[in-house]
Amino acid sequence: MNAELDHLPYGVFSPADEGPRAGVRIGDRVLDLHAATGRPELRSASLNSFMALGPEVWAETREQARAAAEADATSYAIDEVTLHLPFEVADYVDFYASLHHASNVGRIFRPDQEPLLPNWRHLPVGYHGRAGTVIASGSPVVRPSGQRKAPDEDAPTFGPSRRLDIEAELGFVVGAGSKLGTPVPHDDFARHVFGVVGLNDWSARDIQAWEYVPLGPFLGKSFATSISHWVTPLAALDAAWTDLPGQDPRPLDYLAPDRARGLDLAVEVELNGEVVSRPPYASMYWSPAQMLAHLTSNGASLRTGDLFASGTISGPDPDQRGSFLELSWGGKEPFAVGGGTRTFLEDGDEVVLRYSAPGTSGGRITLGDVRGRVE
Amino acid sequence: MNAELDHLPYGVFSPADEGPRAGVRIGDRVLDLHAATGRPELRSASLNSFMALGPEVWAETREQARAAAEADATSYAIDEVTLHLPFEVADYVDFYASLHHASNVGRIFRPDQEPLLPNWRHLPVGYHGRAGTVIASGSPVVRPSGQRKAPDEDAPTFGPSRRLDIEAELGFVVGAGSKLGTPVPHDDFARHVFGVVGLNDWSARDIQAWEYVPLGPFLGKSFATSISHWVTPLAALDAAWTDLPGQDPRPLDYLAPDRARGLDLAVEVELNGEVVSRPPYASMYWSPAQMLAHLTSNGASLRTGDLFASGTISGPDPDQRGSFLELSWGGKEPFAVGGGTRTFLEDGDEVVLRYSAPGTSGGRITLGDVRGRVE
Repeated sequence: MNAELDHLPYGVFSPADEGPRAGVRIGDRVLDLHAATGRPELRSASLNSFMALGPEVWAETREQARAAAEADATSYAIDEVTLHLPFEVADYVDFYASLHHASNVGRIFRPDQEPLLPNWRHLPVGYHGRAGTVIASGSPVVRPSGQRKAPDEDAPTFGPSRRLDIEAELGFVVGAGSKLGTPVPHDDFARHVFGVVGLNDWSARDIQAWEYVPLGPFLGKSFATSISHWVTPLAALDAAWTDLPGQDPRPLDYLAPDRARGLDLAVEVELNGEVVSRPPYASMYWSPAQMLAHLTSNGASLRTGDLFASGTISGPDPDQRGSFLELSWGGKEPFAVGGGTRTFLEDGDEVVLRYSAPGTSGGRITLGDVRGRVE
Repeated sequence: MNAELDHLPYGVFSPADEGPRAGVRIGDRVLDLHAATGRPELRSASLNSFMALGPEVWAETREQARAAAEADATSYAIDEVTLHLPFEVADYVDFYASLHHASNVGRIFRPDQEPLLPNWRHLPVGYHGRAGTVIASGSPVVRPSGQRKAPDEDAPTFGPSRRLDIEAELGFVVGAGSKLGTPVPHDDFARHVFGVVGLNDWSARDIQAWEYVPLGPFLGKSFATSISHWVTPLAALDAAWTDLPGQDPRPLDYLAPDRARGLDLAVEVELNGEVVSRPPYASMYWSPAQMLAHLTSNGASLRTGDLFASGTISGPDPDQRGSFLELSWGGKEPFAVGGGTRTFLEDGDEVVLRYSAPGTSGGRITLGDVRGRVE
């Protein structure tokens, strides 16, 4: 069995001098899904109208794509097409689901207190981010300006962020929406979630630190969030589900603690060509389905194109931390890279996030990466 | 001069058995804007494609609408049409721009500390809310469930909110977008903002209090935000601009403190037919243009349909508070209404927010109201 056919991630591409359309990636080629299936929703500049059709159509289309790939249907070399943002983002929510990340941040920012706040083990903490500034992998990231005040300064000043950072995350893409006033139960996760993307939640730590009380992060995050060109459908991750590390105390019933499962994805954070961290997604505390059940537990509706992200993925070890804030311990312990040391991002730095997972026929699949260079 | 022609707010309506289209309200009638102007963007289920055309077209269309009204063009009785959500919300941001509201909340939640946090007088504090649950006036509001933990409880429980509240706000609607990486200067406010809506930011205080550290409000707010059917164009508010109450310390230059102006709108909060509060918008600390300049100061782009709201409008006096949290001082001082007393909302309660402003020819204009009943 060809491991490439285990994956079949969805994207939107334009062949030279032609309009955008949906495709699946097979190695270094992109298959034209509209040509392969005849489905009109796949001749579109975004996956939204296709994703809205729901899980039966997703499964059928995946079978058609696999058959077309085996029959050598119309495809294009990936370096001869233009790749686009794969879907229009409706609402974007960012969670904070890594115990190690939340504990590290607590220790860095509030060294005299318990690292975890009292609510953290009871619910997946999250907040809404800016959907309109979600950009495709490869788009440049302009260093944001903003207000920041160092502890030793009397008043804030306005200027370029001095503590520009990344957050290595995984994003979950909602295909089929839900009705306002009707929570989505934990077990309906796969009826609504179409797939996953790699996600870099660029963060200006100095802007964030000054602005975030009491209503949470705002301009420290809203200037850019990069996602991969490719959406890996849930069906390609069938072999990646694994036990959670464990939840104590037992979460409330609507979070279905007995049935919650995690994902065994490997992540690499690469700075200017060098791997600086390898966060294991399997170390996450809250499960994807728990995040979705929590997000809708108040009756909030889902729309096609909603994107919710895991929050920074950090494992228990120092070389498994998914942000420079943690890797440099708040900027106090520069880490070695490229023959020198580093705390936060410098102009010209390029970050690539890479993701892989067990495939359904024994090998590994490589998910879409997320690239961005600081300008 | 007819004061109704000073207003000419925009909405989307369907006549009986016909499709949705844009209209302007003139007293108890709705004028069909597509019929009056021939502009194809006005034969649409939302104002977005029209708003995207920018301020010159907005001004021209307003003149055409006025001329059509004076010529008795095609119109419909307002009680014979169906009104819709007037625009598709792109990103929704909620600010916290009232000094009196922020101070009251600080005193209620943190009685032993300075009521305002250190950043509050330096920047308009804000956060992103859920765009997909912005609903039109008149839509029912289902009491949300969620996790809440009272201070005297050991652990959280899940169930219907016991502290359901309103927030009387004003919303600003972005018509013309902006480019990622390019801040919108304070003085370009009217090049981007199309108009204003009334807005009720329904809030579950118990859910919010337990969830909001450290990333801000999430499920305590995301179940519903109601806006008026009618968008009042900025041009109708020309006579409403007024001096701000005063900003101390002087904000940083990008917030243009010498040119910042407020809006003299009167607001009424009505519970089951009885006015319980009259918050004056002129008491707001941060100006609308300062909020927009801040929102984009990090380079975040604007899209047509972006909505940013003022946060709760509360004046200095007890009968000018724009939330039940403040009116009942955290639930400890029930206020008199309907022959009894009240702290938070009960099932069956109906809240109506009403707004008025000086018109451009001397009288007052009545903005679209915001209604909602708790179910």
